[in-house]
Amino acid sequence: MAKSILDYETVELRDELDAIEIIDQTLLPGNIETILLKTGEEIWNAIYLLQVRGAPAIGVAAGFGLYILMKKSEAKSYEEFMKQLREKSDYLNSSRPTAVNLSWALNRMETHIKDMTMNGSDFSTINEKHGISEKGFCLQSLIGEMKEESERIKAEDIEVCRKIGEYGLELIKDGDGILTHCNAGQLATCKYGTATAPMYLAHEKGLNIRVYCDETRPLLQGARLTAFELQSAGIDTTLLCDNMSASLMKSGKINAIFVGCDRVAANGDAANKIGTSVVATVAKRYGIPFYVCAPSSTIDINTKVGDDIKIEQRKPEEVTEMWYKERMAPEGVKVYNPAFDVTDNELISGIVTEYGVLRAPYDVAIRKLF
Amino acid sequence: MAKSILDYETVELRDELDAIEIIDQTLLPGNIETILLKTGEEIWNAIYLLQVRGAPAIGVAAGFGLYILMKKSEAKSYEEFMKQLREKSDYLNSSRPTAVNLSWALNRMETHIKDMTMNGSDFSTINEKHGISEKGFCLQSLIGEMKEESERIKAEDIEVCRKIGEYGLELIKDGDGILTHCNAGQLATCKYGTATAPMYLAHEKGLNIRVYCDETRPLLQGARLTAFELQSAGIDTTLLCDNMSASLMKSGKINAIFVGCDRVAANGDAANKIGTSVVATVAKRYGIPFYVCAPSSTIDINTKVGDDIKIEQRKPEEVTEMWYKERMAPEGVKVYNPAFDVTDNELISGIVTEYGVLRAPYDVAIRKLF
Repeated sequence: MAKSILDYETVELRDELDAIEIIDQTLLPGNIETILLKTGEEIWNAIYLLQVRGAPAIGVAAGFGLYILMKKSEAKSYEEFMKQLREKSDYLNSSRPTAVNLSWALNRMETHIKDMTMNGSDFSTINEKHGISEKGFCLQSLIGEMKEESERIKAEDIEVCRKIGEYGLELIKDGDGILTHCNAGQLATCKYGTATAPMYLAHEKGLNIRVYCDETRPLLQGARLTAFELQSAGIDTTLLCDNMSASLMKSGKINAIFVGCDRVAANGDAANKIGTSVVATVAKRYGIPFYVCAPSSTIDINTKVGDDIKIEQRKPEEVTEMWYKERMAPEGVKVYNPAFDVTDNELISGIVTEYGVLRAPYDVAIRKLF
Repeated sequence: MAKSILDYETVELRDELDAIEIIDQTLLPGNIETILLKTGEEIWNAIYLLQVRGAPAIGVAAGFGLYILMKKSEAKSYEEFMKQLREKSDYLNSSRPTAVNLSWALNRMETHIKDMTMNGSDFSTINEKHGISEKGFCLQSLIGEMKEESERIKAEDIEVCRKIGEYGLELIKDGDGILTHCNAGQLATCKYGTATAPMYLAHEKGLNIRVYCDETRPLLQGARLTAFELQSAGIDTTLLCDNMSASLMKSGKINAIFVGCDRVAANGDAANKIGTSVVATVAKRYGIPFYVCAPSSTIDINTKVGDDIKIEQRKPEEVTEMWYKERMAPEGVKVYNPAFDVTDNELISGIVTEYGVLRAPYDVAIRKLF
């Protein structure tokens, strides 16, 4: 039997090849192809071009990426090692600004090395752990530790998504129609997805659900990725254009909305794929609960409110040329192309994390969580 | 100097060729090509395929179309003539269900012939008018009368749009940012457009305005037509995807929204291109006035409320295949593809007609108008 898209790993460490292997998501749904990323430029481009995308998957790719790049280090001292690490980390971090998981994963890798070595003052624990008898700085044990930490990030991602699925499942009834925007699916994580995790678990438990996918212009992640992976799982899947949400919600077909997010501010404002706040606004009008699925790693307590979140502006050609094939707008026209928007906390019915569903007031709920 | 798109006639009677000439709008903005429509099938297809589109332009094409088709009549009696007229009228009317202007123009053509002949009981006035000396049924004078009536529909369309522009202009200030959805522009009418008429007049008067055009999936009338015609007129034009409206409105760049409509119910609920009610819902949240530009021919007092308006469902391929080129969604996925949605009257700040700006309560304002 042919492999389903769900049988592929979104992001995989291929240590024996000094590489990360990813599904090239820009080719979906027409072609399922994996590619190997070995250099910093290759990893940076894969994130920038959305060959790997989705806040959690970007975090995993960044962790593996930093490990793969540091594997080539010939640093002679802890200071040199950490300088190289920060340079490579800063470079990878510049690929996309909005998803906090990118910087979160990179910082976690750095912090882990600092913690394990007491800021470079004691290598005994780490050396012992990796079977090194010497006491001082040892490249091999640092690199081995980075590998383990990057693998933990991936394993935790899978576990976090499963838990989000379990908490989200409590918000779904048999027969529900569910709307989602963009792709916060398995393809955006390592398994289950965030917004899709409750859907996959509901389907596994035999609940009848109907999922409606916004196509999500300009890059069509909803059409190309979410509809593709849900349909591959055998879930009743319907595609619509982003501007059809009011018509659909008014028709009574939607009982709940689940979306992912790229960064949640300390007050619960949530940045996610452009158009998310449109869906939330329309949902409010029709009294439909709107849930944001967020691993706690996506909650950024250092960002006070949504307006403080930096929103990536992308190339006009994403809008004017339909998927880079043919120009569908007049030459020279100006284009407004933000990649994300911020959904105000008052439009959010709940934030589904791996620790449970947070409810308003979100500033209090988030403070309690951390 | 090369002809601008604004120098072309959207719909033109080419009587000497027994044809209607239209711009094939499916080829814009890449190619400006006009085509001749001679048979009923050609006219029906041109409307169904959106080669000619926009409620007012469809009305004009239907009037010319009915005339062109009846020109070939060899009816021997008034009854036979009217039977043929109704058959051809019913056929053309089946091309698209939502825009009331289609049936309005076709009914107007039929009613005019009935009125001019006192329901086929007196041909003296009509025959005299067309220089026919005989007193009874005369094919030539009926056909001549149809031609005149269809030309009047077009002339009135231009005049109506100009007046809508003048009333709409009073709602615009120098420096305003204006958002529009779909194409209710010159390409949807014979001149000025409806939603764009205030913009063209503002620009003519030297006001600085910035117009933002929703691209309007699935058929991209905003990107292909509105952005094209406004930019050709030298207006500051910016394109955005439909799902970017909340981000744009929140940024403070938009002062007013103008859209067209396909049918306004007696209570002011307005059917227009899918996504219009999404824009209206978001505008309400950000306190931005939302105006519907409607020739009085678009107001259907026989339709009580918006829910009574029949909404055309179109082919899945419009969504799954990007402008009919390449599949961008998984094979076999279901598609929700309504061509229109209904904006509830409570979301509408004013309905701009050729007689002035109607304000809520719309049922009263509309009753007064008729």
